[in-house]
Formats: sequence, C-alpha cells, structure tokens
Amino acid sequence: MANFKGHALPGSFFLIVGLWWSVKYPLKYFYQKAKSSQLTRYYQRLEVTEAAIRTLFSVIGILAEQFVPDGPHLHLSHENNWVKLMNWQHSTMYLFFAVSGIMDMLTYLITHIPLGLDRLVMAVAAFNEGFLFYYHVHNRPPLDQHIHSLLLYIVFGGALGLALEVILRDNIVLELFRTSLIILQGTWFWQIGFVLYPPFGAPEWDQKDHDNIMFITMCFCWHYLAALCIVALGYSLVFCVLTRAKRPGEREIIGIQKLKSGHTYQTALLNGSDE
Amino acid sequence: MANFKGHALPGSFFLIVGLWWSVKYPLKYFYQKAKSSQLTRYYQRLEVTEAAIRTLFSVIGILAEQFVPDGPHLHLSHENNWVKLMNWQHSTMYLFFAVSGIMDMLTYLITHIPLGLDRLVMAVAAFNEGFLFYYHVHNRPPLDQHIHSLLLYIVFGGALGLALEVILRDNIVLELFRTSLIILQGTWFWQIGFVLYPPFGAPEWDQKDHDNIMFITMCFCWHYLAALCIVALGYSLVFCVLTRAKRPGEREIIGIQKLKSGHTYQTALLNGSDE
Amino acid sequence: MANFKGHALPGSFFLIVGLWWSVKYPLKYFYQKAKSSQLTRYYQRLEVTEAAIRTLFSVIGILAEQFVPDGPHLHLSHENNWVKLMNWQHSTMYLFFAVSGIMDMLTYLITHIPLGLDRLVMAVAAFNEGFLFYYHVHNRPPLDQHIHSLLLYIVFGGALGLALEVILRDNIVLELFRTSLIILQGTWFWQIGFVLYPPFGAPEWDQKDHDNIMFITMCFCWHYLAALCIVALGYSLVFCVLTRAKRPGEREIIGIQKLKSGHTYQTALLNGSDE
Amino acid sequence: MANFKGHALPGSFFLIVGLWWSVKYPLKYFYQKAKSSQLTRYYQRLEVTEAAIRTLFSVIGILAEQFVPDGPHLHLSHENNWVKLMNWQHSTMYLFFAVSGIMDMLTYLITHIPLGLDRLVMAVAAFNEGFLFYYHVHNRPPLDQHIHSLLLYIVFGGALGLALEVILRDNIVLELFRTSLIILQGTWFWQIGFVLYPPFGAPEWDQKDHDNIMFITMCFCWHYLAALCIVALGYSLVFCVLTRAKRPGEREIIGIQKLKSGHTYQTALLNGSDE
Repeated sequence: MANFKGHALPGSFFLIVGLWWSVKYPLKYFYQKAKSSQLTRYYQRLEVTEAAIRTLFSVIGILAEQFVPDGPHLHLSHENNWVKLMNWQHSTMYLFFAVSGIMDMLTYLITHIPLGLDRLVMAVAAFNEGFLFYYHVHNRPPLDQHIHSLLLYIVFGGALGLALEVILRDNIVLELFRTSLIILQGTWFWQIGFVLYPPFGAPEWDQKDHDNIMFITMCFCWHYLAALCIVALGYSLVFCVLTRAKRPGEREIIGIQKLKSGHTYQTALLNGSDE
Repeated sequence: MANFKGHALPGSFFLIVGLWWSVKYPLKYFYQKAKSSQLTRYYQRLEVTEAAIRTLFSVIGILAEQFVPDGPHLHLSHENNWVKLMNWQHSTMYLFFAVSGIMDMLTYLITHIPLGLDRLVMAVAAFNEGFLFYYHVHNRPPLDQHIHSLLLYIVFGGALGLALEVILRDNIVLELFRTSLIILQGTWFWQIGFVLYPPFGAPEWDQKDHDNIMFITMCFCWHYLAALCIVALGYSLVFCVLTRAKRPGEREIIGIQKLKSGHTYQTALLNGSDE
Repeated sequence: MANFKGHALPGSFFLIVGLWWSVKYPLKYFYQKAKSSQLTRYYQRLEVTEAAIRTLFSVIGILAEQFVPDGPHLHLSHENNWVKLMNWQHSTMYLFFAVSGIMDMLTYLITHIPLGLDRLVMAVAAFNEGFLFYYHVHNRPPLDQHIHSLLLYIVFGGALGLALEVILRDNIVLELFRTSLIILQGTWFWQIGFVLYPPFGAPEWDQKDHDNIMFITMCFCWHYLAALCIVALGYSLVFCVLTRAKRPGEREIIGIQKLKSGHTYQTALLNGSDE
Repeated sequence: MANFKGHALPGSFFLIVGLWWSVKYPLKYFYQKAKSSQLTRYYQRLEVTEAAIRTLFSVIGILAEQFVPDGPHLHLSHENNWVKLMNWQHSTMYLFFAVSGIMDMLTYLITHIPLGLDRLVMAVAAFNEGFLFYYHVHNRPPLDQHIHSLLLYIVFGGALGLALEVILRDNIVLELFRTSLIILQGTWFWQIGFVLYPPFGAPEWDQKDHDNIMFITMCFCWHYLAALCIVALGYSLVFCVLTRAKRPGEREIIGIQKLKSGHTYQTALLNGSDE
C-alpha cells in the first residue's frame, strides 16, 4: 500500500461512493415527500443493491491485500514474527466495511431487525478505521504523520455523524454531511498519494519542512470546500431533473410542505415568501 | 490479580453477563410489542433477579480481593504505608457495580424512584472503572500499558451509551451496543491473561516489541467483530425460538409494526416490501 | 486561600448547597405531580430566595478575597507587577456564580426571559471555574496538582449536565446528578484541606509518593459513593415525610402515574406489579 | 496581519456582527410569538440582507489579504517555496465564511433547500477557523501561543452550538449563546492586538512571564462576562422598545404564553405569579 497506487485505489473507491451518495440522498429526500409506494419499493431495491456492491468491493479489498505478490497470503505469524501486519490491518478495515454492508442488506431484507443497527455498525466500521490509523502512523516523518492524521478528522467526524443517525434516521442534513466527508476522504487519499509518492517523475516533497505541513493543513480545507461544492452540485442536479420530469404529467413529486416539528416558524417564513 | 487467573475470572464474569444480555434484550424487544401484562410481570421479576445476582457477585468479588491470602484483609494503612492499594482499587470497582445492582433492584421494586437513575448509576460504575484504570497503568512496560488502555475504549464507550440510555430508555440499538461492549470486555480480559501471563508454558511475549503492539491493536478489532457476531447470533436465536413458538397457537407475539416516531418513511419502505 | 481554612470554607458552602438540593429537587419532583397552583407559587418563591442567598454569598466571597489582610484590596497591578492574581482568580470564580444567581432570580421574576438561560449561565459559571483551575495548577508538586485536577472531573461533569438541562429542563435524573456532584465538590474541598494542610498537628503527606496519588484517586471514588448515598437519603426522607403527611387528609400529593413519553413500556411493567 | 490593525479589523467585524445579533435574535424571538405573516416576510428579507453583507465582507477580507502590498497577490508558490502562507490561511478562513453567507442566502431564497444546512455550513466555517488556528500557533512565544489558543475555546464552542442548532433550530438560548461567543471573539481580537502589538507607544509585555499568562486567562473570563452583559442589554432594549410600541394600539405583539413541550410545569409556575 505504501505507494501511489495504494492510495489512488481506495481514494477512487471512496470518491465513487461519495459521488453516488450525493445523488442518492437528495433523490430519497424528494421521494420521501412523494409518498408513492411504487417509488419506495424501487428505493429499497436500490439500497440492497448498493449494500451488496459495497460488501463485494470490501471482500475484493481483503483478497487483494492478502494475495498481492508481497502480501501475507493469510499467514499471520512466521517463526515468531508477525507477517505483514500492515496488510492485515488494511484487511481488518475492509472486513468491518464488509460487515457493515451485510448489516445494511439484512436491515432492508428482514423486517424484524431494529432500524438503526445498520447505522451503528457503519459507525463502528468508521471508528475502527480511525482507531487503526491512529496507532498506525507513529514513527514516521512529520509530513507523512500529519497528512495521515488529518484523515482522523474525517473518519471520527463521520463516525459521530453516523452515531447521530441511529437516533435521527433519514435526516437529510446528516446524510449530506456524511456524503461530503466520504468525498473528502476520497480526494484526500489521492492527495496523500501525490504528496508522499509523487507520480510522473515529479520532485519529492521535503517531509520535514514546516511550511509544507502548513500548506497541507490549508489544502485539507480546500478539499473540504470542493467536497461541499460537489454535494451542492449533486443536490441541484437531482432537483432540476426531478422538476423537469414533473412538468408534463403535472404529477406532484416534490412536495412543497417543509413542515417538520420545531421548524414551523421557519416554514411560515418560507411559505410566506412563496405566496 | 496480576496473574492469569486474575484476568480469566473477571473476563468470564463479563462474558457470561454479555451472553445473557445478548438473549435478554432481544427477548424484551419482542415482548414489548406483544404488550401482554402477563409477560411484563415475568420480565420484571427477571430484571430483579438479575440485579440481585449481579450484586451478589460484586460482593463476592470485594470479599475475594480483600481476603485472598496476600490481600489487605480490610487494612488500609500500616505503619504509614498504604496496604495493597491494587486490591483496594479492585474492591472499589466491584463496590460501584454492587451499588449499581442495588439501584437496579430498587428501580424495579419501588414505584417512586424516577426511571433513568438505574442507568445513571450503571454509567457511573462504568466510568469509575475506566477512571481507576486510567491512573492505574502508568509505569508499566509498553505492551502491558497498551493492552490495558484499550479497555478504556470499552469502558468509556459503555459509560457514554449508558448515559444516553438515561434519556433514550428501552432503545434496543443502545442495549445491543452495550451488550457487544460487555462481551468484548469479557474476551479482552481473557486475551490480556493469555498475553501477559501465558499459561500452559507458552513462551513470553516481548513487551517492548512495536509489532506486538500493532498486532494487539488489530486483535482488539477482531474481538469486537466476534462480539458483534455473538450478539447477532443471540438475536437470531431468540427470533427463531419465538417465531416457532408462535406457530401452533397463532398468538401474535411478535408485532409486525415497526412504527416509531421519526422512522415513518423507513417503515413505509419496509412494509411496502411485505405487502 | 492556600491553607486549611481556605479549602474548608468553600467546601462547606458547596456541601450545604448540595445537601439543600438533595431535599429540594425530590420535593419539586413530587410536587410537579400534584399540580397544585398553591404549591407552585410557594416553590417559585423558594427558588428566588435560594438564588438571592447564593448571590449574596458569592458577593461575600468576592469581598473576602479582596479585603482579607493579605488580599489585593481591588488593586490589580502595582509597579508593573500583577497584585495577588490568585485572589483575583478566586474573585472571578465567585463573580460568575453571582451572575448565575442573578440570572436565576430574573428567570423566575420576569416572565419574558426565555427558560434555559439560567441553566446556560450556571453551566458557564461551572465551566469558568474549571477553566481557571485548569491553568491554575501548573508548577506544583505532583500530589497537589493531582488532587486539584480531580476537581476538573466534577466541574466539567457538572457543566455538561447543566448544558443538557438547557434542553431537558426539569429532568429529575439530571438534577440529582448535579446535586451529587456539588456534594462531591464540597467534601473534596475538605479532603484537599486535610491532605495539603493537615490541621491539628497531623503529619505532612509526602507530595511525591506515587502510592499517595493512587490512594487519593481511589479516595475520590469513595467520596462520590458517599455523595450518592447522601442524595439517596435526601430523596427517601422527602418521600417518607410526604407520604406520611398525605395520610390524614387523603389528598393525593404524590401521583402514581410515571407516564412519560418513551417510558410507556417500563411504566406498564411497574404498574403491572402494583395491581 | 501580525500587527495591531490586523487584529483590530477582524475584532471590529466580529464585534459588529455580535452587537447586531444581540438585537436580531431577541427581535425574532418576540416576533415568533406574534405570528404575523407581515412581520415574517420582513424578517426573511432581513436575513437575506444580512447574509449578503456577510458574504460581501468576507470577499473583501479575501481580497485585502491577497492584495495588500506585502500580500501573495494570488501566487501560491514561487521557486519551490510557498508564498505568504499566513495570508493564504486567512483567505481560506474568510472563504469559508463567504460560503456560509451564500448558503444562508440560498436557504432563505430557495424553498427546496433543507433547513439546517445553513447552520451546518456555518458550523463548518467556525470549525475550520479553529482547525487552522490550532496548527497555526506553534513555535511562538508562550504568551502569544496562549492568547491565540484561547480563541479555540470560542470557535469550537461556537461550532458545537451551531451543530446543535441544526437539530434545535430557532432555539433562542443557543442563538444568544452564539451571540455572546461572537462578541467575545470580537473583543478578544482587540485584546490580542493591545497585548502583542501595544499601540500608542505603550510598553511591551514580557511574553515569557507566567504571571502575564495567568492574568490573560482571567482577563478572558472578564471579556466573556462583558459579552454576556452586552447580550443582556440588547435583549432588554428590544423588550422595552417592543413593549412601549405595543401600548397605544393595544396590538398584542409579545405573546405571554411561554408554553413549550417539556416546560409546562415551569410555565405553570411563571403564570401562577402573574395572576
């Protein structure tokens, strides 16, 4: 994993999931208002399919970590030495995401599983990733350590948001927040690859220069800003497509009522301006 | 306590409580839907019995810590030196769990105790365990310190979950989370025993090797995965037994409605697929 | 303040407030069920009186800190040196508690102040105490530093609980939790006095002995256990007195219904056993 | 920025926003009770205008940071060295506040943006400011580091409060808390300017003196007390003006009912005293 490809690959994966979620959750949000049983059935199949794909990719990740040429090939210890602990740790991270995917599938397929468990297991998977990373990055050059430790903000932030979703399920703000974080994680993995293992013969970065660390910190903020813009774009796209689709048949897909408990005053404001 | 048995014993205790809870809470969850006053009366007796047994074992733990041959025998200081502070600290931990057990009993027996106090006292007991452990593990070899400090994640995580249960009482997700943590604590105590005091003439672990620390960190994640699987097994088992029991008499024990406030859309989805 | 009396005084003050609260909040809890407008009017006067007394004592505290013989007498700097910063810091702590007392009075006297502000200001006062203590205890012997830093658990725990009360107002569990913490703070100040400035010619403690630190940590847990017992005693006392008072006139002061949203199942359990 | 003006400018800006908010939120609170659609339409325009002005000032801030004589003029790197990273970091902070302003405008102008996103983005902007500051103040003299790090309490406290507002929207207590924090930030920036770059030929502060650090810590508390007083003044002012305005026409602008769920008992108390 300690090369450019090893960061670009998970980066791309997180990015794709993030882009997909930036379309999926707005879709769900607008469909929720439509309250058509037809749509909800479709949506459920979508969720199961997504969870299945996520599980599949996690399993592929585990196999790849184990059976790459210099991988451990499922050997844990050899002559009293641990074999390729790095690969084993990455396998463990994937394993938790696989379990989270399975839990998602079960929640949508079996009625008798209490809602919220899927979010709890996903929160545990995110926490676990951060937990392993935290003990992972000791004894490295300052820049390497710093650039990896910034991942912890993403992962623990995501775990916190997911834990809140156990209680506040189907809250669009939390879902978009999670989406922005996973996009950030995707682009940040790419950034790590470019900084630590510059491809295309680019010059090496001085890993002890304090200015580089200051720049990377700021760069992290820019990445998040980009992630927020991508989420906003996805949301607008879905809104435009649905509004256009609505025109001809005049079917009311997007409800105008925004009434939620506690938001009544605000709603009054917003409706007031629509009259 | 600084031997294999001293870790296997509390480990087994936590494990048994965890296994029992992994059956109890799913049972309660399904019975809640049945709303039979007969069942709820049985359930209450169960809770009181469990709390009584927990209190009893905590008291036994205190006595064992005090009156083992090399224990303090209730002497706190001797010639201006503190006597066996380790044993006293363990006694204190058990004492809080005993108080928590008594509080549980009182809550179910006396109507005029406000609900939530039992969870608060249990959260305090868990926090107290972590608090004492935190100041406990200084000045030890790195592996010893690390393997014990991982317990803090379990204990403070449990305390946080319990504090949430003060407000969100009878939330099955929080209860299963707590169950998984106590199982993890049980298996982790066994792991500590095997690592620090290898039984059966197994070779000693190098307590300063960084690879050992990395492996133990990962091993902790595996233990939690195992704990999650045990909870899932307990849940499935209860579900299967109850479903089979339901058949003959056609009495509706397991309600199908999953309607909880805020989960309505999700419910619509799930019901939609059942039609 | 760096003497026995300087710790016994605030300790006694916190202890008295705690003992009073351990009676007041159970009283309120039982009166809430009675829903008599007569009682609520009395209760309001009680709150205003308490807040006035708390404000008064805080002002006395400020004056004492300023005008003791070796106090700063309101001089802040002298010839480019700060004068008696310790006393000024203590004055600041008292000042925040005075403001909190004033806020409490205003909340009960003026209808147009939003509820929750009084708890917010009290949380700020508690946080402020912890904040000043945190930067206060550097550069002292280990035991002195440790015994003072344990106060931070109390104060920040209290601030967190108070912040929760902004949203969950009149929650008896949170109120009793707060009560137990303030009693703990009272007894702990006394403990600090006895350890750091042993009165009655008792021998000095070795401030660098690690065993002393371990004992003090455990001692802190015992103090909290004692605080919990005091709260339990206060609650039982109020309950007994009210139940006895109820007998003759048969007026239903203590409602039996425990129905709160989300607690219905539990309630069914408890009522079930009463039938 | 490392001069008096560089701190006085943002200080004034935060102070003006804080003063404005200390009038705006009480106004909203009282208007909410009036439930006049006329007023709510005015209020909405106000919010949009405010957000537009905030965005404008943030953009001016970015431009100022970039195009001051010794600014980077949009050059990020020059001959493999980063150019004026300090200015770039400040630009990044302003950029997030600009995005937050835009989000606010969109939320009030476009009906189909879910409520709460504006608060989430503002929380992100506050967190981002703290995040950059945290990595910003290393390698400076103790007093400089301390006085800047106190800003983190304000900023992370504000971010936490804003995150809570995502769920508890239009909660006056949270809004006034946020107002007090932004006033504190304003006055604290002025204080930093006075301490680190004394104007008017005042003597320099000894940046390594521990007494200075102790004084500054306490001074921070006094600033917050002042901020609380300013908020209280703003609230009283609005209340008085509205009450006076109400007299002649007898139109009921300020509702007396304080009934909110969970506050019923308290309300009974307060109403009781009005009769």
